[in-house]
Amino acid sequence: MKNRRSRNSRRKGAKEGNDAPKAPAYIKRQIPFYELLSEEGLVQIEQTTDRILAEVGLDFRGDDETVELWTKAGAEVDGERVKFPKGMLREILTTVPEEFTQHARNPEKSVQIGGNNVVMAPCYGSPFVMDPDEGRRYATIKDFENFVKMTYSTPWLHHSGGTICEPVDVPVNKRHLDMIYTHMRYSDKAFMGSITTQERAEDSIELCKVLFGQERLEKDCVILGNVNVNSPLVWDGEATKVIRTYAAANQACVIVPFILGGAMGPVTNAGAIAQSIGEAMVGCALTQLVRPGAPAILGNFLSSTALRSGSPTFGTPEPALGSMVIGQLSRRLKIPLRCSGSFTTSKLPDAQAARESTMSMLAAVQCGANFILHSAGFLDSLLSMSYEKFVMDTDFCSAMHTYLGGLPVDENSLAMDAFKEVGPGNHFFGSAHTLANYKTAYWESNIADNDSYEQWVENGSLDAQSRAKSRWKKLLEEYQKPEMDEATDEALQEYITKKKQASEDAWY
Amino acid sequence: MKNRRSRNSRRKGAKEGNDAPKAPAYIKRQIPFYELLSEEGLVQIEQTTDRILAEVGLDFRGDDETVELWTKAGAEVDGERVKFPKGMLREILTTVPEEFTQHARNPEKSVQIGGNNVVMAPCYGSPFVMDPDEGRRYATIKDFENFVKMTYSTPWLHHSGGTICEPVDVPVNKRHLDMIYTHMRYSDKAFMGSITTQERAEDSIELCKVLFGQERLEKDCVILGNVNVNSPLVWDGEATKVIRTYAAANQACVIVPFILGGAMGPVTNAGAIAQSIGEAMVGCALTQLVRPGAPAILGNFLSSTALRSGSPTFGTPEPALGSMVIGQLSRRLKIPLRCSGSFTTSKLPDAQAARESTMSMLAAVQCGANFILHSAGFLDSLLSMSYEKFVMDTDFCSAMHTYLGGLPVDENSLAMDAFKEVGPGNHFFGSAHTLANYKTAYWESNIADNDSYEQWVENGSLDAQSRAKSRWKKLLEEYQKPEMDEATDEALQEYITKKKQASEDAWY
Repeated sequence: MKNRRSRNSRRKGAKEGNDAPKAPAYIKRQIPFYELLSEEGLVQIEQTTDRILAEVGLDFRGDDETVELWTKAGAEVDGERVKFPKGMLREILTTVPEEFTQHARNPEKSVQIGGNNVVMAPCYGSPFVMDPDEGRRYATIKDFENFVKMTYSTPWLHHSGGTICEPVDVPVNKRHLDMIYTHMRYSDKAFMGSITTQERAEDSIELCKVLFGQERLEKDCVILGNVNVNSPLVWDGEATKVIRTYAAANQACVIVPFILGGAMGPVTNAGAIAQSIGEAMVGCALTQLVRPGAPAILGNFLSSTALRSGSPTFGTPEPALGSMVIGQLSRRLKIPLRCSGSFTTSKLPDAQAARESTMSMLAAVQCGANFILHSAGFLDSLLSMSYEKFVMDTDFCSAMHTYLGGLPVDENSLAMDAFKEVGPGNHFFGSAHTLANYKTAYWESNIADNDSYEQWVENGSLDAQSRAKSRWKKLLEEYQKPEMDEATDEALQEYITKKKQASEDAWY
Repeated sequence: MKNRRSRNSRRKGAKEGNDAPKAPAYIKRQIPFYELLSEEGLVQIEQTTDRILAEVGLDFRGDDETVELWTKAGAEVDGERVKFPKGMLREILTTVPEEFTQHARNPEKSVQIGGNNVVMAPCYGSPFVMDPDEGRRYATIKDFENFVKMTYSTPWLHHSGGTICEPVDVPVNKRHLDMIYTHMRYSDKAFMGSITTQERAEDSIELCKVLFGQERLEKDCVILGNVNVNSPLVWDGEATKVIRTYAAANQACVIVPFILGGAMGPVTNAGAIAQSIGEAMVGCALTQLVRPGAPAILGNFLSSTALRSGSPTFGTPEPALGSMVIGQLSRRLKIPLRCSGSFTTSKLPDAQAARESTMSMLAAVQCGANFILHSAGFLDSLLSMSYEKFVMDTDFCSAMHTYLGGLPVDENSLAMDAFKEVGPGNHFFGSAHTLANYKTAYWESNIADNDSYEQWVENGSLDAQSRAKSRWKKLLEEYQKPEMDEATDEALQEYITKKKQASEDAWY
C-alpha cells in the first residue's frame, strides 16, 4: 500500500510539537490531477502564449546583461523589448529538471520538488501580523521568529518558507540577514533566500555556503529564491539580476507572475493564463541561459478582481479553475509548479477566510502544485499574518496529507470479512476489522470541535478562532530548537555581524 | 459558448430577491468529473458490492409485500433475509431513467436531474434552528416558512427541499401537511414529500394531484421522496412501503444509505463505498420492481467518525474522496446521484463550519452529484439549521454556478487583441477587452468583504457572521410570495383541513 508511509507517520508520531522529525518530509501524491481542460483548449492557450511572446514580447528594464543573453540566444531585441520567436523558449526549457531535491540542513527534511511531490510552505511577505489580543500591528523580528518556530514544530509544513512576515523593526538593508539566520538556527527545514536586491541574494547564498559548505552548493540545491514578474510583461532589472545570481550558484528560482485579472492581465481566464505561463516561461528560460540544468519552478499567482472597487479577490472560482489549467500546462512543459495555498481577503480568521482558503488550497492540491507557498497564515489579502489562521491552515494542510493519500483499494480496505462478521443490522464498532484499522482510519483535526452541542456548551462554547488561539500558544510554549554545532553558529553570526557593520542602516 | 446562459443569468438579473425567476432553473455542468479511481479499483469495489449482496444479503423488516416482490424477481429469500444473485440487481436497474425532469408548478423552475445537470436544495431534517440573537431552539412552522421563503428568493438554490427543519410545534402526524402546503404556497420551485409513514407519503402525492392535476402524475414526476436505508444492510418496512408508494405513483425516490464509518459500515473507505452502493442499488431496484421506468436517485451519505468519541465527523478528507468514487460508480450504473452539500459538525457559522462545508460541497460538485441536498444551512452535525449559515452557503452555491461554468477558451477569452493593445507595463483597466467583458468577468460574493483593512474598520469591523445576519433579514423582508390561483389554494387547504380533522394530534 503506497500511502502507508504518510498515514502511519501521521498517526504514530506526527503530532505537532517536539516529535516533528517523525513526520514525512513532503507528500507523495496518490491521487490523480484534476484535468479540467481538453487537449484542444490547452493547445489554444499554448498558441496564445507563443503569440504573446513572439508578437508582443516583454520589456527588460535596467539589466543589459540579461538583454545580451537573450540576443545571443536568438531573441528579437529592440532596446528593452525582447520578442521570442516561436519554439525558442520551449527549446531552452528542455534543460529544466522535472524534479529536484532542495536539501535541508537536517537531511531527513530535504524535500523533493516536482513530479508527484507536494511541499507546503507558510505565507510570504506580510508587513502586518494579527491576533485577537493585540490586533493588527507591524510585524517584528520576534513575530518572524515565532512563525519560523511554529513552522518547524508543525509536521504539516515541509518547508520553512522565506519572508514569512516582514520584520519591520530591522533595517531594510539588513533584515534579510536576520531572517535567514532565523530560518537556519530555529528550524532545520529547507528555506528561501532574499530576492529584493542582487546583493541580498548573494548574502543568502554566502550564508548557505557557511551552513552547508561551499562545495555542496555546486552539486546541491539548498535555497530557493521567489522572484516576481512585474506583470504585465515586464521584468525589472533587479529581479533578473537576482534570477541570474541564484541560477549561477546552481540554486533554484521560483518565477512568479503576479496577475490580478483586469489589472495586470485580461479579465478573461484563458488569456490571463496564457500570459502567466508566458511570463513564467521567460523567467525559467533565463535561468537556463545562465546555467543549463539549474533548478527552476514555474509560479502561479493568478487571481480575480472586484471590478467595482478594483480590489483583489482571492479564493474565488475563477482562479481555482485557472490553477487547474496552469497545472496541466506546467506538466506539458515538464517544469515543477508553485501555486498559492490559503488565500483570502478576510480581515479575520472567520467563515469567509476559511471558505476562500479552502477553495484556494484545494485547487492547488488538485491541480498538481509541487510547491505550495502561502499554505498557512494568510489574511487580509496577504497584508497580515494571523497567528490563529496559521494553526487553522496547518490543520487543513494536515487534512491535505490524508486527501493526497487517496483511497486505497485492497483486501483489507474492501472489508469483505467484516460484512460477513457483522451482518445486517449490527454495528461495526467492535468488529475485528474495526479493531485492526481504527488507529489509522480517519484524519483527525486539531482545531475542529466534533462534540455534541451540550458538550460544546459545557466546554465554553468556543469558536474556531478561540480554539486556534490556545493551539498556537501551546505550539510556541513547547518549541525546542534543533541542535546546531557551535562553530557553524558562530560562523553564521560572524558573517552577519560583519555585513551589518559594513553599511549604514537604511529604512526604505 | 455553452455556459453563457448561466453566467449571463447570474450577472444580468440573478440577484437574490424578487427577480429570482430570471436565474437558471438548474446548472448544466461544463467541467469534467474528477475521476479519482482507476478502472481496476472501481471493478474491485463493484465486485465487493456484488459479493455483499449475494453472500451477506439485506434484511427486510415488516413489509411482506416487498419480500414477495424480491422472491418473484429471483432473489434468494430466507425469512427477512434477502440475497441477490450476481447480476440480478444490475439487470433490474437498467430501466432506471438516466435523466428525468422534476416539474415545478412554475414550469420555468422545473429541474432536470441526472446527466450533466446539478440541482441544489437546502438542508433537510434539523430539529433545531439557530441565530445569534435567539440562540439554539426547537424549530417551528414559522422557521420552516422562513427557510422556504428564503429558498424561493435565492437564485442559487434550484429546489425547495423537503423537511428543511422540523416544525416541532405542529403534531407529528400532521406536520407533513403544513410543510407540503408551505412548499406549494410560498414557493414555486420543485420540492420533496413526506417519507415518515406510507400514509404521509400518500398525502404528499394526493396534495400534488390537487396542485398539478391527477393526470399529470401519470406522466410527470412532480415530487421526490428521500428514503433512508437503516444501514448496515437493513430496510425497514415503513421505508420500503414509502418507496413502493412513490414508485407506484411514478414519482421519484432518493435512496440514501446513511453510513458513518466504524458504526454503520467499515472504517475503511473502499468497503464503506461498496456497502453504500449496494444498499442504494437495492432500494433503486425496488422502485423498478414496482414500476419499471419510475425515476430513482442513488444517494450518498457516507461520512467519517471521531473514533475516540464515536461522534460523526463531516467535511473531512475521507468522505470527500469517497464522494468522488461514488460518483464514478453511479455513472457506471447510469443512475442519477444525490450527494450532500455543506456538512459540518461546528456549532457556529465560524471558520470550522466554512472549512468543512467547502470541502464537502466541492466534493459533491466535483464528483458529479446531480442533486445536492443539504446545500445550505447545515450546522451542528445536521441538528441545527442556521439562518446565517444558510445565506453563507447560498453564496457559495452561487460561486459553484461559476465554477461549474468552467473555463471557456475562445477568441474573446484568449484576449490576444488586448495584449496587443495594452502591451508590456500598462494596465488592463481601461482596455477595450476589459470594457467589453468586465460585466460578466468575475463571480461576486454577497457576503465576502474585499475592502481594504481601513475601509473594513470604517464599516464596523464586521465578521462574516454579522454580514450574513443582515443578508438573511433583508432576504425575508423583501420576500414576495408567488401567485397561486385561489381555487387551487382553497382545494389544498380543504384537503389539509379534512385530513387534520380526521385524526387526533399525535406528538411522537
